[in-house]
Amino acid sequence: MFKDRLRAVRETHPLVHNITNYVTVNDCANILLACGASPIMADEEAEVEQITAMCQGLNLNLGTLSRRRISSMLAAGRKANALGHPVVLDPVGVGASDFRRSAARQLLEELQFDVIRGNLSELRCLAGGGESTAGVDADGTDAVTEQTLRSTVEFAKGFSQKTGAVICMTGAIDVVADSRRAFCIRNGHPMMRSVTGTGCQLSSMTAAYLAANPADGFEAAAAAVCAMGVCGELAYERLSPMDGIGSYRMYLMDAVWNLDGDTLERRAKYQIM
Amino acid sequence: MFKDRLRAVRETHPLVHNITNYVTVNDCANILLACGASPIMADEEAEVEQITAMCQGLNLNLGTLSRRRISSMLAAGRKANALGHPVVLDPVGVGASDFRRSAARQLLEELQFDVIRGNLSELRCLAGGGESTAGVDADGTDAVTEQTLRSTVEFAKGFSQKTGAVICMTGAIDVVADSRRAFCIRNGHPMMRSVTGTGCQLSSMTAAYLAANPADGFEAAAAAVCAMGVCGELAYERLSPMDGIGSYRMYLMDAVWNLDGDTLERRAKYQIM
Amino acid sequence: MFKDRLRAVRETHPLVHNITNYVTVNDCANILLACGASPIMADEEAEVEQITAMCQGLNLNLGTLSRRRISSMLAAGRKANALGHPVVLDPVGVGASDFRRSAARQLLEELQFDVIRGNLSELRCLAGGGESTAGVDADGTDAVTEQTLRSTVEFAKGFSQKTGAVICMTGAIDVVADSRRAFCIRNGHPMMRSVTGTGCQLSSMTAAYLAANPADGFEAAAAAVCAMGVCGELAYERLSPMDGIGSYRMYLMDAVWNLDGDTLERRAKYQIM
Repeated sequence: MFKDRLRAVRETHPLVHNITNYVTVNDCANILLACGASPIMADEEAEVEQITAMCQGLNLNLGTLSRRRISSMLAAGRKANALGHPVVLDPVGVGASDFRRSAARQLLEELQFDVIRGNLSELRCLAGGGESTAGVDADGTDAVTEQTLRSTVEFAKGFSQKTGAVICMTGAIDVVADSRRAFCIRNGHPMMRSVTGTGCQLSSMTAAYLAANPADGFEAAAAAVCAMGVCGELAYERLSPMDGIGSYRMYLMDAVWNLDGDTLERRAKYQIM
Repeated sequence: MFKDRLRAVRETHPLVHNITNYVTVNDCANILLACGASPIMADEEAEVEQITAMCQGLNLNLGTLSRRRISSMLAAGRKANALGHPVVLDPVGVGASDFRRSAARQLLEELQFDVIRGNLSELRCLAGGGESTAGVDADGTDAVTEQTLRSTVEFAKGFSQKTGAVICMTGAIDVVADSRRAFCIRNGHPMMRSVTGTGCQLSSMTAAYLAANPADGFEAAAAAVCAMGVCGELAYERLSPMDGIGSYRMYLMDAVWNLDGDTLERRAKYQIM
Repeated sequence: MFKDRLRAVRETHPLVHNITNYVTVNDCANILLACGASPIMADEEAEVEQITAMCQGLNLNLGTLSRRRISSMLAAGRKANALGHPVVLDPVGVGASDFRRSAARQLLEELQFDVIRGNLSELRCLAGGGESTAGVDADGTDAVTEQTLRSTVEFAKGFSQKTGAVICMTGAIDVVADSRRAFCIRNGHPMMRSVTGTGCQLSSMTAAYLAANPADGFEAAAAAVCAMGVCGELAYERLSPMDGIGSYRMYLMDAVWNLDGDTLERRAKYQIM
C-alpha cells in the first residue's frame, strides 16, 4: 500500500516548489531528490506564481519567516489552489511570536491546504489552543504518548474537519488524520529530533508524495510520514560509536535515497484509529 | 596542462566573491576552500563594491533570486568589470520565470562575463531560444549526447561569439567553448545531478580557477569543469551499499579537497572540437 | 572545571536565538543541538523581541549582513540586554566593508555584549586598529603565535576593558580574556579553518555555554572555545586517507555531540596569563 505511494514518487518525479526557511533549505532540496522528486526553491513575489504553475506541488514553511515571504506564500498558494496542486503548510515555531501566529492565521484563511504538518504544540497553537513553544526543534511536552494518543487523535480529526487538510502530527507517535480516520505510526527514532530540519524535510517530502498520488492525499501523507520514520530507524542502526548527529543526518539522507517499497512495507508499524 | 591550472589555485588562494542563492551557498563556500581558494558571500548593495574590490573573482548565481539581489549583482559586476576581475554567471533555472529571464537579460546587457555556466536548457533560454525548464536540478531533455554533440558545440561557440564569454555547458558530456574551439569533456557521473548544488559549486570553483589563471580563462574553465567531473567519479567509486546522496555529497567535497594534478591529468577525458 | 560548564549545557538545554548569516546557519543550528542546547533562528524585526524573550541567550553574527538584519539585531539585542540574557557578537569579516564596520560600531555603541568572538584581524578592526581582512575564513596574518602571544593578550584584555565583554580570539592559539585574566588555549587543529563556519558555530555554542552558566561568563566562554578545539582534534584523528573537509565537517559535529566532560578536561591545554 505505502509502497505504491513511494513508487509513484519515483516514477513521476514530481517537481515541488518550496517557499521555506534558509536554515534547512538545502536539506529540503536534497531530501526531495533523495525520494525521487525534484526541488525548486523560489520566494520572490514577482516569480512565485509562474514557478508554482510549472510544478506539481507546493510546500510553505514558516521558519525564518519574513514579511516579504508571506506575500510570496499567499501568491503562490492562491495559484496552486487555482490549479488544484497539493499545498503543504509547515507552521515552524508558530507559537513563538505574534508575527508567526498572525501570518499562519492569514494563510489558513486565504488558502486551502492539503496537509498541515507540525508537532503537537505547533498544531495546538494553530488550532487556537496553545501559546507556548520551546524552540523549533524539540519540546518535551510535545510527546504524543500512549496515554494521550486517543485525545490527540480526536484533536487531529477535529482540526482536519475544521481546515479540510490532512493533519500530520509528528512526535514519539506520529498521527496522520483526516476528519474520520487516523494513522497512528510507530516508526522513527528520537535521534531525528536532535538534527535540525527533519521536520522541514518531511514536509517537503510529503508535498512530493501528494503530488505523485493525487487520488489519495490521506494515504500519501501517511506513507511519507512512515517512510521518514523508517529511514530514521535505518539511519540509527547504521551509527557506529564515534558517530553523532553529523553522521546521522547523512545516513538519514542515504536511507531516503535507498528506501525501497518492500523495506517500507515490512518495517511500517501503524494502526488505524 | 589542467594540472597547472589546479596548482595555480592552490598556490595563489584566490578570494572569490559570491552573490548566490541561499540553498547551496554553504556548499559553494566549502568547495572554494576545498579547491584551495577562499570564499566571501555578501549581497548587500551597500557593500558589494568594496567586497568585490578586495577579491580576485566574482560569481553571480540566479538561484532564489530576489529584486534586491539583482541590484547588488549589477553593482558588484560593474566594479569587477572595471577592475578586470573575472566574472562568472550561473543562470540557475533561468527559464522558470519571466523575472529570471528579464534579470538575466539585464545582467548580460550591462556586464561582461568571462564564463557563463549552465545546463543546455538554461543556456538555450539565455540565448533566446528555449522557454522550458524542469526544475533546477535535472532535466532529461538536457542531455548533451553523442548524437547532438556537434550541433551543441556549434551553439556554444556561437553563444560565446555573441557574449564574449566562455560557455560552460554541463551535462552527460560537458562542453567548454569559446568562439573558435571547444573542449568536450567526458568526465563526471550521473549521480552528480542527484545532489543539489553541484552546478552551483562548479560555478564558484570556476571563478576560482579563472582568478588564479588570468592569462587563459578558456583553459582554466575547462580545467575546473574537468576537475569537478573527475571528483564526481572518485566520489562515486567510494560509495558502499548503504551510501546514497548524503554520502556522495560528502565524498565529492572530499575528492575536491584531495585532488592532485597527476590524478586530474590521468583521469581527464576530453577532445577538442 | 570546564566539564561543569559542559554539563550545565547538557542539563539545562538553553534555547539560543541566532540572527546569523545564511551561509553557515544550518551548521549553527546543528552545533547547538550537538552540544545539548536548542536553536531558534529568526531575523524578522517584527518578531525578534518576542523570540529573544523566550530564549536564554542571543547570538548576533555579521556574515551576509543586510540593512534589515541590522535593525533586527538592535531590537533583539536591546531586549536581551533588558532581560539580562547573555549576548554574543561575531563580527564576521568586519574589516571587509565600511558597511560592516559601521554596523559593528553601532551595535557596540547601543548594546552590551557578554562575548565578542572573532579572529585577530576582525577584533583589531573592531577595536579601531586595522582595516584589512582577507576573506572570512582564513588569513595568514591572523595567526596568534608564541611570539605575538603576550602582546595579543594585552590587546584582548584592553579591548575587554573597553567593551565590558569577554574577548574570544580564535586562531593557532585561542585567547579568551576579560580585563584582568586570559586563558591561552592550545587546542584545535588548522583544518578547522579549512571548513567554512567553524567560527560561526563556536559563537553559537558560546552563547549556549553562557546561557547555561550565568554565574561565570568568562570561564563558560573559555570552556566553549576549549571544547570546540578538542573536538577539532578528535575530528582530525578520525580522518582516513580519502577523507577531506566534507568528512572533517561531519566528524567535528559528531565530536561535539559525543564530547564528555572527562575527555574535555583530559585534553584541555591552556595556561592563564
